[in-house]
Amino acid sequence: MTGGVLTVLFGDPFAAMNTVGLVAFALVGASKAVREEFDLFGVAVVGLAMAFAGGVTRDLLVARVPLALRSPVEILLGLVGVALAVGLSARLASPDEHPLTVAADAVGLAAFATTGAIVATDAGVSAFGVVAVATINAVGGGALADVLLDRPPFILFEDFYASCAVLGGVAYWLVGTLGAPSGVAAAACAAVTVGVRLLAVAYGWRLPTATQLTERLGGKS
Amino acid sequence: MTGGVLTVLFGDPFAAMNTVGLVAFALVGASKAVREEFDLFGVAVVGLAMAFAGGVTRDLLVARVPLALRSPVEILLGLVGVALAVGLSARLASPDEHPLTVAADAVGLAAFATTGAIVATDAGVSAFGVVAVATINAVGGGALADVLLDRPPFILFEDFYASCAVLGGVAYWLVGTLGAPSGVAAAACAAVTVGVRLLAVAYGWRLPTATQLTERLGGKS
Amino acid sequence: MTGGVLTVLFGDPFAAMNTVGLVAFALVGASKAVREEFDLFGVAVVGLAMAFAGGVTRDLLVARVPLALRSPVEILLGLVGVALAVGLSARLASPDEHPLTVAADAVGLAAFATTGAIVATDAGVSAFGVVAVATINAVGGGALADVLLDRPPFILFEDFYASCAVLGGVAYWLVGTLGAPSGVAAAACAAVTVGVRLLAVAYGWRLPTATQLTERLGGKS
Repeated sequence: MTGGVLTVLFGDPFAAMNTVGLVAFALVGASKAVREEFDLFGVAVVGLAMAFAGGVTRDLLVARVPLALRSPVEILLGLVGVALAVGLSARLASPDEHPLTVAADAVGLAAFATTGAIVATDAGVSAFGVVAVATINAVGGGALADVLLDRPPFILFEDFYASCAVLGGVAYWLVGTLGAPSGVAAAACAAVTVGVRLLAVAYGWRLPTATQLTERLGGKS
Repeated sequence: MTGGVLTVLFGDPFAAMNTVGLVAFALVGASKAVREEFDLFGVAVVGLAMAFAGGVTRDLLVARVPLALRSPVEILLGLVGVALAVGLSARLASPDEHPLTVAADAVGLAAFATTGAIVATDAGVSAFGVVAVATINAVGGGALADVLLDRPPFILFEDFYASCAVLGGVAYWLVGTLGAPSGVAAAACAAVTVGVRLLAVAYGWRLPTATQLTERLGGKS
Repeated sequence: MTGGVLTVLFGDPFAAMNTVGLVAFALVGASKAVREEFDLFGVAVVGLAMAFAGGVTRDLLVARVPLALRSPVEILLGLVGVALAVGLSARLASPDEHPLTVAADAVGLAAFATTGAIVATDAGVSAFGVVAVATINAVGGGALADVLLDRPPFILFEDFYASCAVLGGVAYWLVGTLGAPSGVAAAACAAVTVGVRLLAVAYGWRLPTATQLTERLGGKS
């Protein structure tokens, strides 16, 4: 972790992914708050909440002081995303539904699933723990943003959204267990998460409900 | 903690109670999500959230990495409860109001109040801390499940529900302070919690509001 | 921390501020719950949640067992605030909008911003971390109380409310960085927070929305 800012940001897969995720999620969260006509403080809070809530929860789960409170670089990256959202809001009619925002959201999801898996593996938790921390890191910020925006957070469960992070976490664990180095596992996790997410958006994928499943299996009540 | 799985599960009061609580709460949470027509991923998430949220909060409060992330057995128990709920949903019209679900909920409440009291006592917190951690462990999962289901979580406070866990935590602390071994205190906590809860359901017990109390005491405004 | 109860409570800025904040926030939270006709258990839970949620979150963020669980004095102070609210509810028509409650809320906000800044500084976090922990400590309890009362928590962002704690946290960090002793920084933080809050209430201050800002800057879309 020595060397210049560029080394800190891009010298290892964790830092690179973390940088991308922070800017992307701050942009998405702030865009949603702009749409809801929050004041500037509210826009910044929702953007920073979306960027940091997942990572803070991740760090609490593995019992360490959150990186967001220790690193002065982190908050600057979040504010860059907020500033981008405010700037874009002057140009775009509905910034939170723009393809750019949807793409940034998918990239943030993949980046945070990966950083969650890396931190959980370092902390020595079980295979389930790796997948759980990857998923919580990826979707925790969006869930809190929805709560702050007074939307139901389970919108996460209606779409094929959190499932992408689950699959990414499984990919990280599988590739790592097969003996690949950390960077390869991180790349696999990010590729699976962002790929499945973009396919799910493009083709409108849905998971079946319990009623639909039991009907298909012939177990009608 | 050596020996086979049976010893791990039933060799000490903590493990036995924890097993019962995990299956019961995963069953209750998943049943509620089935009722709301969540997709299968959502059903699993609400079930696992109800089973694990209390215990994760408990472990965070006493500053240790959550057991749910360290033990691979824990997640399997939660998935057993989710599978039971999906299976029952094919047979029962409203699984979340069935007497079986109400009983499972009372048993889970008692089991988690007890495990919360045990962990808090081990962590050396104050008497209030023991009761608080027991209550949070017992009702935290249900509160999160209600939030995910977009119901107000304070439904916990309208019924005689969290109060049962408070009384169970007080019983654990009283019996332990009188010098009884941990197993006796655990049995007292579980018996008080589940007993008071079932009596409250059977007789429709309610606590008075502040207005009612001041009227009874003659302090009308 | 040796000596009698008075020394514990008033011997250092942290303990004095913490005492004031606990009683004030328990009073405010319980008053809101009385207004909503919660039962007595619910009134106590909302009051204690408002008093303790911020401090518990603060302690979790700096990775220590929450003070509320370790100190038996803390819970008594919270119960004093709850009892005050119940007593006042017999005399006042709408206790949660009474000037006394608004003043208590401003004092609690200032007290908890200060204790948050002190704990964060002791934990050695970054300047952003000091401001973030001060703000979360100050507004976390009120946000949880609103959730329990089924009100949207972002009411915090519509008023000039959390902003006061942000300014207080900045004042603490600035005064401390200039070399002043901890007591002076604490006094500056408390004075800025309570002063800005009371001025904001008196003059109805609001922050601009992003739309208003871009209109003023001539960046109409």
